[in-house]
Amino acid sequence: MTTIGISLGDVTGIGPEVTLKALALERERRDAGFVILGDGKHLRALNQSLGLNLALKDYAGSVAPGEAAICETLPKPLPEKLEQGASEAALAAVSWLREGANRCLNGELAAMVTAPVNKESIVRARQRFVGQTEFLSELAGAKRTAMMLLGEDDRGRWLRVALATTHVPLKSVSEQLTKEKIVLTIELAAEACGKLGLARARVAVCGLNPHAGEGGQMGNEEITTIGPAVEVARQKGLDVSGPHSADALFYYAYRGDYDAVVAMYHDQGLVPLKMVGFEKGVNWTLGLPFIRTSPDHGTAYDIAGQGKANPSSMVAAIGLAKQLAVHI
Amino acid sequence: MTTIGISLGDVTGIGPEVTLKALALERERRDAGFVILGDGKHLRALNQSLGLNLALKDYAGSVAPGEAAICETLPKPLPEKLEQGASEAALAAVSWLREGANRCLNGELAAMVTAPVNKESIVRARQRFVGQTEFLSELAGAKRTAMMLLGEDDRGRWLRVALATTHVPLKSVSEQLTKEKIVLTIELAAEACGKLGLARARVAVCGLNPHAGEGGQMGNEEITTIGPAVEVARQKGLDVSGPHSADALFYYAYRGDYDAVVAMYHDQGLVPLKMVGFEKGVNWTLGLPFIRTSPDHGTAYDIAGQGKANPSSMVAAIGLAKQLAVHI
Repeated sequence: MTTIGISLGDVTGIGPEVTLKALALERERRDAGFVILGDGKHLRALNQSLGLNLALKDYAGSVAPGEAAICETLPKPLPEKLEQGASEAALAAVSWLREGANRCLNGELAAMVTAPVNKESIVRARQRFVGQTEFLSELAGAKRTAMMLLGEDDRGRWLRVALATTHVPLKSVSEQLTKEKIVLTIELAAEACGKLGLARARVAVCGLNPHAGEGGQMGNEEITTIGPAVEVARQKGLDVSGPHSADALFYYAYRGDYDAVVAMYHDQGLVPLKMVGFEKGVNWTLGLPFIRTSPDHGTAYDIAGQGKANPSSMVAAIGLAKQLAVHI
Repeated sequence: MTTIGISLGDVTGIGPEVTLKALALERERRDAGFVILGDGKHLRALNQSLGLNLALKDYAGSVAPGEAAICETLPKPLPEKLEQGASEAALAAVSWLREGANRCLNGELAAMVTAPVNKESIVRARQRFVGQTEFLSELAGAKRTAMMLLGEDDRGRWLRVALATTHVPLKSVSEQLTKEKIVLTIELAAEACGKLGLARARVAVCGLNPHAGEGGQMGNEEITTIGPAVEVARQKGLDVSGPHSADALFYYAYRGDYDAVVAMYHDQGLVPLKMVGFEKGVNWTLGLPFIRTSPDHGTAYDIAGQGKANPSSMVAAIGLAKQLAVHI
């Protein structure tokens, strides 16, 4: 039986709420057990206030299918009342993240789903922290990672996008793009298609500039960097094409002409992805030695504690983690 | 009765084909007459080979509803056989563009739809030429113009996007963005909503950086340039908001929360637009002293002359021109 870990993230955000709502749906499915790395008192109070009636046991080394158990790892429990972005919550989130990763690395967990944390409050609590992906990569000693986002529309059509650069100011994207990074992202995207059980791994690569530079007339990164990267990947035997004009490419990929797209920067990939599957987007970190997925949203402090957070993205993140855990 | 001009563009591309196919549909509608600035011999041969049976008269100062007449303005007709990108075709395309614009300016035509030209072949034919929009702006003495793209999905939902910068290498976007350009684009976008007959003109402005810079942590143009531009526009009484994180914004706009989006650069606006209405996208030049629309595709030499070009975008461009001609 598959055991999936869920790191609870920042308890002053919507993470715990979407986690419990998603687990309430999982209860019926019974194809995996769940271990929540988190705070029992908070979770049980929330379970009650949301009226979910989940049987949240204390984790004692195993969970039954459909069941969720809480694994408390903090030296002392969190205070009951916490301000949004409180440093106790921030530090707890980091601790749960670390615990989950370690239990994936030692094989206790088959995969890990990470609820959102708040970067700023973690940094304010004096932790060196760039993001969950970077934290997990460093912990696992993984240097060759990339972010893939997956979205499914209401007709069951998928868009899968891997990013060559992520949280970079737009004007620095060009200087941060390297042939090596693009080749790596193509390789990881192709590998991801295999892990998803797709029959093919047709990877399409975006250009950086309007109309993919139109032969060097509007920027030359397609000629100096992206084109050569595509060529290297092709010589490695991958089914890859590009650089394509990004505007048309996403439509073609969405239509089914390609299995994955490699985007050069954040908005190039995220804009079409959110058009397709706004509330169901999933983030998957490629290249880690374990499976890690996460919902495609943040702590959403503005609606936290109101019971109205939509769990669709968490549901999708759990679904992908289960699928990958079986496949890989 | 509304008379719409169509400049035929590069006859070695798909422009004439999509024009005639679109006019065959207009024949039934009878709500406007059409004057094609173009080459009679080519058009009549194509009319026959496509089996459209359009009654293409010579233009003599007026056209009946649903009718299309050809207005020949070249000093001598084009050669029958032309290579793709031939300079005769390129020069003819520029001449028809100029003729159409002049007839809009003098009131003979209510609006103008421009079929695609090929920039490279025009430049090769020793004409100074950046693009049709720039050409028309200069001819009309219009300094304050912007490009708006409109797309409609198969459920009748619209996305309308005005661009603050257009055909600029991605790494130069930041330096080309100015507060003035953004304010202008917001104003033109709001005005466009009025001309479209929309009840409101809720304009949403994109950030430039991932997550709209996250408070200056990933780029600062939102703070230095875009935010101040939004503020200026708001003080002018416009219903404007932003800078928004672009990835979520397009979804919200598509859902109907906003009437128009101002994007900072080409792919930011074009990627979501083509996701929504790939084959039906329309380009509308805002700020000209006359109505000008165009299909959202190029000469497509790869499929020219094969009879398989899809006229949907030209149909939409004609439809928008008619709508605006009645409204404005």
